[in-house]
Amino acid sequence: MSNEFLVDGTSIAKLPSDYGSTGFKMFKGSVLNNVEIAYETWGELSINNDNAVLLFTGLSPSSHAASSDLNKSKGWWEYMIGPGKPIDTDKYFVVCVNSLGSCFGSTSPASINKETGSVYGLSFPELSIEDIAKAGHSVLLTLGVDHAHTVIGPSMGGMTALAYSLMYPNSLSNLIIISAAARALPFTISIRSLQRELIRSDPIWNNGIYEKNSAPINGMKLARKLGLMSYRAANEWRERFNRARSPKQNDRKMFDIEFEVENYLDHNAEKFVSMFDPNCYLYLSRAMDLFDVAEHGGTVNAGLAKIHTKNNLIIGVDSDILFPIDQQKEIADGMTKAGKNVKFEVLNSIQGHDSFLVDVKNFSRVIGDFFKN
Amino acid sequence: MSNEFLVDGTSIAKLPSDYGSTGFKMFKGSVLNNVEIAYETWGELSINNDNAVLLFTGLSPSSHAASSDLNKSKGWWEYMIGPGKPIDTDKYFVVCVNSLGSCFGSTSPASINKETGSVYGLSFPELSIEDIAKAGHSVLLTLGVDHAHTVIGPSMGGMTALAYSLMYPNSLSNLIIISAAARALPFTISIRSLQRELIRSDPIWNNGIYEKNSAPINGMKLARKLGLMSYRAANEWRERFNRARSPKQNDRKMFDIEFEVENYLDHNAEKFVSMFDPNCYLYLSRAMDLFDVAEHGGTVNAGLAKIHTKNNLIIGVDSDILFPIDQQKEIADGMTKAGKNVKFEVLNSIQGHDSFLVDVKNFSRVIGDFFKN
Repeated sequence: MSNEFLVDGTSIAKLPSDYGSTGFKMFKGSVLNNVEIAYETWGELSINNDNAVLLFTGLSPSSHAASSDLNKSKGWWEYMIGPGKPIDTDKYFVVCVNSLGSCFGSTSPASINKETGSVYGLSFPELSIEDIAKAGHSVLLTLGVDHAHTVIGPSMGGMTALAYSLMYPNSLSNLIIISAAARALPFTISIRSLQRELIRSDPIWNNGIYEKNSAPINGMKLARKLGLMSYRAANEWRERFNRARSPKQNDRKMFDIEFEVENYLDHNAEKFVSMFDPNCYLYLSRAMDLFDVAEHGGTVNAGLAKIHTKNNLIIGVDSDILFPIDQQKEIADGMTKAGKNVKFEVLNSIQGHDSFLVDVKNFSRVIGDFFKN
Repeated sequence: MSNEFLVDGTSIAKLPSDYGSTGFKMFKGSVLNNVEIAYETWGELSINNDNAVLLFTGLSPSSHAASSDLNKSKGWWEYMIGPGKPIDTDKYFVVCVNSLGSCFGSTSPASINKETGSVYGLSFPELSIEDIAKAGHSVLLTLGVDHAHTVIGPSMGGMTALAYSLMYPNSLSNLIIISAAARALPFTISIRSLQRELIRSDPIWNNGIYEKNSAPINGMKLARKLGLMSYRAANEWRERFNRARSPKQNDRKMFDIEFEVENYLDHNAEKFVSMFDPNCYLYLSRAMDLFDVAEHGGTVNAGLAKIHTKNNLIIGVDSDILFPIDQQKEIADGMTKAGKNVKFEVLNSIQGHDSFLVDVKNFSRVIGDFFKN
């Protein structure tokens, strides 16, 4: 099933059976067999094996971060990755992994459980951010990379990069965390909890048992609208839409779309629902709520003190309401207090949490500078 | 039907037939017959007829703003209204009206249309904030009050007070606007639009045709959760809940409530759904999206310039994400520019949009001072 979402040019790593034992042992204790992780690469691994950049994604993207010879369509971070770009693939070997639990080629709730012949659905074991980090680490190993030059990730990918640096402290040199958090705040949890409830309230969801061609798309669409609202910022929308009206349809009913902002949300949510599996969304979303750096040391600061990368870049955006700037400051302060070399960049981008996708100028500058120095 | 929601001690004003003509002519042109408005009063009207305070409410409360001899239960603004309180009922005659379109005794989509014998539902005409203001004005007239000392309102009630001061500029002396706006921003519209969609997505809603005892409570509950999230502020929840876990139930299923903040939202939304009619919610919510002071003068500032109250108090809270402080500043700046006497109070309450309900200290002070001077 997951292959139906798979994008062209993606490779699949069949993960080794947990370094000798059988199956992929998950953070919460379950064992998952036959784990496959989709990934894409750009550039070439150096002879010294010292130029790999491992990129973890946010909740919804695939591993297709940039175009390549195998897939010429634009990736979700096209401006960032490529020859001469801020993450320069003439110098670096970039690996982007599709998260374990996501539906773009990696093993997930939408995959067939080879032991039963049925789709996992809710029989998929509890997923943690740590599992996504471990799967990414395993992909590097299958590619012959035992040490990453840099691990980088935005949003959920930033949480995953944090988990990676806690679980494999000796297998990376540098860390870039973008618009992420050491653990979720109650406001953010409430947004994601309601999104999950919107999916689960769709009768078609049916406790996670549905066919791909009859998925609970209404619930997904409502959840995505709430997501879009939390990814952007009020002032950007004021500039962009203000109170512009949507062109009226002749058959317009009361409470139908009236304003352009409603039209924008509807259009974008509609695009998303055909691309993402609802059960995967539930698992990944909940993993973000549960992630907590404090589980790696007793407190957040004790956890952060265990990271021992050489150079660390922590980026936040002051219009972000989902991962507010205080949360990136918490990471930067905690690491600085523990004596790490940290650069904390507060960007005044107006696009909220999504800024890393669209504020090309600011993000190119701070990430480009980091890789140059 | 509306009487089922009616609280004890509420009076009902049968509005005169639009000052001579037949029926209540609405802002968008429809005519509504047999309009009744629920209200409560505190204190006594002075012989000089110069001490009436007209209070408009937010979207969800009834006219029961404070306890009285007729209804001793606490009102939604209990700390504000009463003998010796900031709005001192030893000095002022306070009238709180239940909004036209709301289900606590006033004519609304939940009322029986006396001409057909059926509940209005979606046959209720399009509702505007101006209609709520007009109904409030009519209630004052039926009480023998032709001039209000002060018109005051929080949230939707603030929008209604603005509409009142534009429609009846010579029938009030002072104006207090709390956590409101001259018109809604796209972010706020998107929240309310999604809330309405959540109600409409409940199959039980059935295009507005349902029995009171089988209302679309699931959709209402989801909508209310989103509302609660927009009424409060992230930092307050961080202090209050942080990542506290909800006591685990034995029969807890995957994706059930995990955190205390989820429990809080669930509990509060549950309480609300039995108290409010879904169709009324849709009409009032949409009226807030559509309200625009610019319709009273071409631009917002031209509209604000038409208000000619003597003293004006504009209050905003800097943690409010639903009606951000810029929007109260817009009102204060516009009125000041037009030469009005304006006091603009920015409060640092941490409870967001709901602060006027819970930040007793700050709100008592600024409103008490206004009435004293």
